[in-house]
Amino acid sequence: MSLMNDLPENLPVFSWPVRVYYEDTDAEGVVYYANYLKFMERARTEWLRHLGFEQDDLTQRLQAVFAVHHVDIHYLKPALFNHLLNIQSTMSEIGRSSLTFEHKVMLDSADDVFCSAHIKVVCVSTDNFRPKRVPQEIRDALHGQ
Amino acid sequence: MSLMNDLPENLPVFSWPVRVYYEDTDAEGVVYYANYLKFMERARTEWLRHLGFEQDDLTQRLQAVFAVHHVDIHYLKPALFNHLLNIQSTMSEIGRSSLTFEHKVMLDSADDVFCSAHIKVVCVSTDNFRPKRVPQEIRDALHGQ
Amino acid sequence: MSLMNDLPENLPVFSWPVRVYYEDTDAEGVVYYANYLKFMERARTEWLRHLGFEQDDLTQRLQAVFAVHHVDIHYLKPALFNHLLNIQSTMSEIGRSSLTFEHKVMLDSADDVFCSAHIKVVCVSTDNFRPKRVPQEIRDALHGQ
Amino acid sequence: MSLMNDLPENLPVFSWPVRVYYEDTDAEGVVYYANYLKFMERARTEWLRHLGFEQDDLTQRLQAVFAVHHVDIHYLKPALFNHLLNIQSTMSEIGRSSLTFEHKVMLDSADDVFCSAHIKVVCVSTDNFRPKRVPQEIRDALHGQ
Repeated sequence: MSLMNDLPENLPVFSWPVRVYYEDTDAEGVVYYANYLKFMERARTEWLRHLGFEQDDLTQRLQAVFAVHHVDIHYLKPALFNHLLNIQSTMSEIGRSSLTFEHKVMLDSADDVFCSAHIKVVCVSTDNFRPKRVPQEIRDALHGQ
Repeated sequence: MSLMNDLPENLPVFSWPVRVYYEDTDAEGVVYYANYLKFMERARTEWLRHLGFEQDDLTQRLQAVFAVHHVDIHYLKPALFNHLLNIQSTMSEIGRSSLTFEHKVMLDSADDVFCSAHIKVVCVSTDNFRPKRVPQEIRDALHGQ
Repeated sequence: MSLMNDLPENLPVFSWPVRVYYEDTDAEGVVYYANYLKFMERARTEWLRHLGFEQDDLTQRLQAVFAVHHVDIHYLKPALFNHLLNIQSTMSEIGRSSLTFEHKVMLDSADDVFCSAHIKVVCVSTDNFRPKRVPQEIRDALHGQ
Repeated sequence: MSLMNDLPENLPVFSWPVRVYYEDTDAEGVVYYANYLKFMERARTEWLRHLGFEQDDLTQRLQAVFAVHHVDIHYLKPALFNHLLNIQSTMSEIGRSSLTFEHKVMLDSADDVFCSAHIKVVCVSTDNFRPKRVPQEIRDALHGQ
C-alpha cells in the first residue's frame, strides 16, 4: 500500500448485466463502438451503488463528481443485437484524486471477450471541475469489501 | 392574429442539412427511430440561431429554456446510412408560452419524406421548469422574418 | 373482437425498470426527450421476451421485424439522473400488421407520470420493409396471457 | 516508407466542425465522454468523403468496412452546450489492413484542446469481419493529397 496506490488486495470483480437493444447497434449489425463506454459507466455506477453510494447524493453532500480522464479500449470482436452482455469491472489503482477501473465486456454465457478497457476517472469539484481527494468514505468502502 | 396564436403569415420554411452517420443507424440498417428527434432539435436550434438567438445566452439572460411538451411523429420510410437529409421546419402556432413546429425529414436530392412531426415546445423557467411567456424578442424576430 | 382489433380483454400491464444514467440526461439536468423512446423500446422488447419471443429469432425464422410507424408522446415532468423509472406498457390495438402500445414512464416509488405515449409498430418484411401479418404465434401468446 | 507504415510525409490536417447540441451533453452540463467518439467518427467519414470515398459505396463495391480496433483518448477539459468544436484529424500510420488516426477536439475560436485521441481502425470484410488489405485506391488517395 502506498499513498499513490492504496489498492486493497483481493478486490473482487463486480459483474453487471447489459442487454443489447436496437438503440445500441449500428448499420453494420453490431454494437456501435462508443456505446461500450456507456455500458462501462453503468457498471461503475452500479458498483458504487453496491458499495452504498448514490452519485446524486455524493454530488449534493460533497460537491464531488467523477469525470473520465483517460480511456484505453481494445475492441476484440463485435457484440450483436439481443446479446446479454456481462460487464466485469475491477480496480487497478486508487490515487489521491483518481480511480482506475479495468473493464471487460463478455458474453454472459461464454468466455468470449468483446472488448476490454482501462478507464481512469478523476474526482472533481462540481464548482470548478478541479481535482479533489477521493472521499474517505469511498476509500473505506473499497477496503471493506 | 390572436393572443393564443399570433403566427405571422408567410412564415418561411427553414432548411437544415443532416448527414446520417453510423451513430444514427441501427442493426436493421436504418436510422433508429428516436434519432430523428435529435435531428429535429438541431434544426430548431439552428433556426433560433439564424434568427439571432443563442440558447445559452437566452438561458443566462432570461432564465428561459425550451422544453419539449408534445411530439406527434409519423415514420413513412426509413432513411439509410450516408443519406444527406434535409430537415424542413416551419411553425404552426405561437402561443403565450409555447411554439409549435412542423418538421419534415426529406432526402436532399428528392421529394421523399422519411418522417413528419408536429412538436410543441414550452418556454419554461430554468428555476422551476414552470411555463413562462415566450420572450418578446423571439416573437418580434419571428414576425420580422 | 374484430378482425381489425382482436385485443384480448384484461390484457395485463407489463412493467419494466429503467435506471437513469448520465448517458440519458442533458445539460438541463433532465432526461433528454428522445431517450424516453429508447426506454419504451426496451420495455416492448422485454414484453415480447416475457411472452417467449426473441426478436433475433423472429427475424431469422419469419423474416419479420417491427418498425415504429407512429409515436404520440406527451412530456409531463422531467425525470432526473439516478431516478429508477418504471415503464408501464399495455396494448390498445392489435391490427392485421400492427400493434399499438400505450406506455407510461413513472417513478418507481410514486405515482408521478413523467411521460405517456401511444406507439404504433408495424410488422414488416426484412426483405423490403413492406407490412406483413403479425405472426399468429404472437397473437396467440397475447391472447394466452 | 515501409510495408507496415507507408505514411506520406506532410499529410495535411483535416478539420471538421461539430456543433454541440443538447443531445451531446449530460447532467453535469458538459459533453458526455462517449460522444466525442461520435464526433471523431464523423470527422473520419468526412475525410474519406473529401478524398472521394463514400463508405456505402466502398462496402458495396469492395465488401470492406472500417471497424475501430483501439481507442486511446485523454479528456483534458469539458466542452459545453453550444460550443462550435473543431475536430482536427491526421494519420500516424498506414498498415497493411489498418489506419491510425490522431484526433484533437478544439474550440473553433481558440487553442483549447478538449480531448485528444489515437484511434486505430481496421479494414474488415463485411462477410466475416476478418481483416483485409486497405484498398489500394485509398492508399493512393492518401499519398496524392
